[in-house]
Amino acid sequence: MANFKGHALPGSFFLIVGLWWSVKYPLKYFHQKGKSSQLTRHYQRLEITEAAIRTLFSVIGILAEQFVPDGPHLHLYNEDHWIKLMNWQHSTMYLFFAVSGVTDMLTYLSAHTPLGVDRLVMALATFTEGFLFYYHVHNRPPLDQHIHSLLLCAVFGGALGLFLEAILRDNIVLELFRTSLTILQGTWFWQIGFVLFPPFGRPEWDQKEDSNIMFITMCFCWHYVAALCIVATNYSLVSCLLTRLKRQREGEIIGIQKLKSDHSYQTALLSGSDEE
Amino acid sequence: MANFKGHALPGSFFLIVGLWWSVKYPLKYFHQKGKSSQLTRHYQRLEITEAAIRTLFSVIGILAEQFVPDGPHLHLYNEDHWIKLMNWQHSTMYLFFAVSGVTDMLTYLSAHTPLGVDRLVMALATFTEGFLFYYHVHNRPPLDQHIHSLLLCAVFGGALGLFLEAILRDNIVLELFRTSLTILQGTWFWQIGFVLFPPFGRPEWDQKEDSNIMFITMCFCWHYVAALCIVATNYSLVSCLLTRLKRQREGEIIGIQKLKSDHSYQTALLSGSDEE
Amino acid sequence: MANFKGHALPGSFFLIVGLWWSVKYPLKYFHQKGKSSQLTRHYQRLEITEAAIRTLFSVIGILAEQFVPDGPHLHLYNEDHWIKLMNWQHSTMYLFFAVSGVTDMLTYLSAHTPLGVDRLVMALATFTEGFLFYYHVHNRPPLDQHIHSLLLCAVFGGALGLFLEAILRDNIVLELFRTSLTILQGTWFWQIGFVLFPPFGRPEWDQKEDSNIMFITMCFCWHYVAALCIVATNYSLVSCLLTRLKRQREGEIIGIQKLKSDHSYQTALLSGSDEE
Amino acid sequence: MANFKGHALPGSFFLIVGLWWSVKYPLKYFHQKGKSSQLTRHYQRLEITEAAIRTLFSVIGILAEQFVPDGPHLHLYNEDHWIKLMNWQHSTMYLFFAVSGVTDMLTYLSAHTPLGVDRLVMALATFTEGFLFYYHVHNRPPLDQHIHSLLLCAVFGGALGLFLEAILRDNIVLELFRTSLTILQGTWFWQIGFVLFPPFGRPEWDQKEDSNIMFITMCFCWHYVAALCIVATNYSLVSCLLTRLKRQREGEIIGIQKLKSDHSYQTALLSGSDEE
Repeated sequence: MANFKGHALPGSFFLIVGLWWSVKYPLKYFHQKGKSSQLTRHYQRLEITEAAIRTLFSVIGILAEQFVPDGPHLHLYNEDHWIKLMNWQHSTMYLFFAVSGVTDMLTYLSAHTPLGVDRLVMALATFTEGFLFYYHVHNRPPLDQHIHSLLLCAVFGGALGLFLEAILRDNIVLELFRTSLTILQGTWFWQIGFVLFPPFGRPEWDQKEDSNIMFITMCFCWHYVAALCIVATNYSLVSCLLTRLKRQREGEIIGIQKLKSDHSYQTALLSGSDEE
Repeated sequence: MANFKGHALPGSFFLIVGLWWSVKYPLKYFHQKGKSSQLTRHYQRLEITEAAIRTLFSVIGILAEQFVPDGPHLHLYNEDHWIKLMNWQHSTMYLFFAVSGVTDMLTYLSAHTPLGVDRLVMALATFTEGFLFYYHVHNRPPLDQHIHSLLLCAVFGGALGLFLEAILRDNIVLELFRTSLTILQGTWFWQIGFVLFPPFGRPEWDQKEDSNIMFITMCFCWHYVAALCIVATNYSLVSCLLTRLKRQREGEIIGIQKLKSDHSYQTALLSGSDEE
Repeated sequence: MANFKGHALPGSFFLIVGLWWSVKYPLKYFHQKGKSSQLTRHYQRLEITEAAIRTLFSVIGILAEQFVPDGPHLHLYNEDHWIKLMNWQHSTMYLFFAVSGVTDMLTYLSAHTPLGVDRLVMALATFTEGFLFYYHVHNRPPLDQHIHSLLLCAVFGGALGLFLEAILRDNIVLELFRTSLTILQGTWFWQIGFVLFPPFGRPEWDQKEDSNIMFITMCFCWHYVAALCIVATNYSLVSCLLTRLKRQREGEIIGIQKLKSDHSYQTALLSGSDEE
Repeated sequence: MANFKGHALPGSFFLIVGLWWSVKYPLKYFHQKGKSSQLTRHYQRLEITEAAIRTLFSVIGILAEQFVPDGPHLHLYNEDHWIKLMNWQHSTMYLFFAVSGVTDMLTYLSAHTPLGVDRLVMALATFTEGFLFYYHVHNRPPLDQHIHSLLLCAVFGGALGLFLEAILRDNIVLELFRTSLTILQGTWFWQIGFVLFPPFGRPEWDQKEDSNIMFITMCFCWHYVAALCIVATNYSLVSCLLTRLKRQREGEIIGIQKLKSDHSYQTALLSGSDEE
């Protein structure tokens, strides 16, 4: 993982999940107002699919970490030293997200699973990610430590939000908060990759320079502004789309009604009776 | 910003906002009990105006930080060093408050924006302010660090209160709490200015003296007592004013009713009929 | 304050307040179930009296700290050094409790004060006490620091509980929690006095000995067990007393009813008619 | 306690409690939906029994810590040093759990005890356990400190969950969360025993090796995944069992009804009348 790709990959995953959520939650929020039971069933199927995909990718992640050429191949201990603990740690992170994915599926598939458990397990998975990262970055240069500790803000913020969601379920504000932090995580992983392992033969960053640390702190805030803007844009796009769709459908109904009433008016005229 | 004016300016802004809130929230609270839909519309217009002004000032702040004679003029990197990171940091803070202002406007202008998002974004803006300040004051003399870290108490306290408001909306206790912390921030910025950059040719403070730090800690508490008193005074003034206005109006109505009943009594006397 | 009496005095105050609360809150809790409006008025008068006494003692505390023979007599700065900052700090703590007392009175005297503000201000007063203590104990021997930092657990725990009470008002669990922490504070102040300034010519404690610190940590837990037991005892005493009083009153009513029915039975016998 | 058995013993207790809870809470949750008052009485008896056993074991723990051959035998201070503070600390922990057990019993035995106090006292007992552990592990080798500090995550997480339960009672999500953390504590105590005091003559761990610390961090996460799986398994077993029992009973009822209707059908046939 200690290269550019190793950070770009998880970054892309978090980014995709975040972007998807920034569409899903507004959609759900606007549809909930309508409260049609048919839509609810559609959403359940959607949630199950999402959870299944999340589980699948986590399992792929575990297998990849274990069976890449220089991976541990499920060997943990060899005579007198641990084998590839980094890969094992990443496998552990993926494992938690897999558990969270399975819990999500169970919540929607079985009526016996209590609501909120899915959010709790996702909060625990996110917390574990932060927990492992926290002990991950000891004994590194200052910039490396700082850039990873900023990531922890996003991770633990997300875990806190999810823990609250376990109690206050279906709160759109908390859901959007989580979405924005997920996007932030995604873009920040990319940023870490660009800073610590500059691609395209760019010059390395001086990891002890104070002004670099100062810039990175500020840069983190910019990433979050961008994440908030993305969420806001997707939210308003969904809102516009649904409004237009609704108007169109209502327009059709009104048109049909108009046609009907025109017809009945003509009929009334012809028959000379007052049908209204 | 590293001078007296640089602290007096934000101090004044926070002070004005705090004072304004210490009038607005009591007003809203007392009017909410009446629940007239016309008043609600007035408050919405008020909120939009406030948010617009807040956005405007934030944008002015960004432009000022960028285009003052010794500002970065939107240049971020020059050959091998970052340009005026301090100004960029302040611009970032203003940017967050601008985003918060825009969110506030949207909450009241569009029915699609979920309630609570405005408070969440304001909480994030306040948190970011504290976050940037936190990494701002490394490698400074003890008094400088301490006086800024006290500011963080007010800032993070405010962010926590705002985050709770995102869930418990329109809670007058939390709103007054936030108001008092905003006034505290305002007056404390002034205090920082006076301590670190004494105006009027006053002697400098010894930044390593322990008793100075001890005094400043206590002084911070006095500022908060003052802030609480200001909020309480404005609250009671608003309360008295509204009660008097209400009595006056009711007095008029009673007067009119009395006139009417007198008139009807006379009419009754004249006509000899019992109209009551 | 840096002597035995200086710790025994605040200890006694907190202890008395805690003991009083351990009677008051159970009383209120049991009476609330009855929901008589007359009792409510009695409680309001009680609360006002309590708040007035609290304010009075706080003002006496401020005056005492200022005008004791070696106090600052309201002088803060003298040529080039601060005067008696310790006394000023204690005055500041008392000031906050005075403000909290006044707020409590206003909450019950004026219908315009929003409920919850009294708890918020009390939380702020408690927080300020802990805040000043926190910066109070730098540069002291380890045992001194440790014994004061344990006090902070009780203080900040109480502040947190009070902040929750500002939102969840009249929650008996939170009220008993606060009561127990107040008693703990009271007894712990006494303990600090005994450890740091042994009275009756006892030998001094070795302030650097590790086992002393270990014992003090455990001792703090014992104090809390004692505080919990005191609260539980008072709670059950109040509960028993009220039950007995209620039975007595009901007994009288039943007795009277019995007398009445006996009388009517005799009357019925005499008159030969069935009056029941 | 500084040996393998000293960690295996509390580990087993926590494990048993955790496993028992992972059966009890799902049972209660599924039965609550039925809301039969008879079941409620059964659960109360169950809770009282559990609390009594918990109290009993805590008292046994206190006595054992005091009266083992090398225990303090209730002597605390001897001339100039504290006697066996470690045993006293463990006694203190047990004392808190005993108090918690007694509170639990009182909550169910007496209608006067306010609901939520039992959870609050259990939260305080758990917090005290963590509090004493926190000051317990100073001046030890890095791995020893780390492995104990990981335990604190489980302990303080449990205390937080219990504190929330004091306010949000009977929340199945919080109850399962607490259950999983209790199991984690149990298995982790065993792990500590295996790492610090390897049984069966295994080689000692190098307590300063960085990779050992890294592995232990990850291992803690695996323990939690295992704890989550245990809770999930027990939850689904209980769910299946209850569903089958319910179906069986309903099946019987339907069978009886069928028999009855068959009988009445035959009667109807015989008598020629239509009884349905």
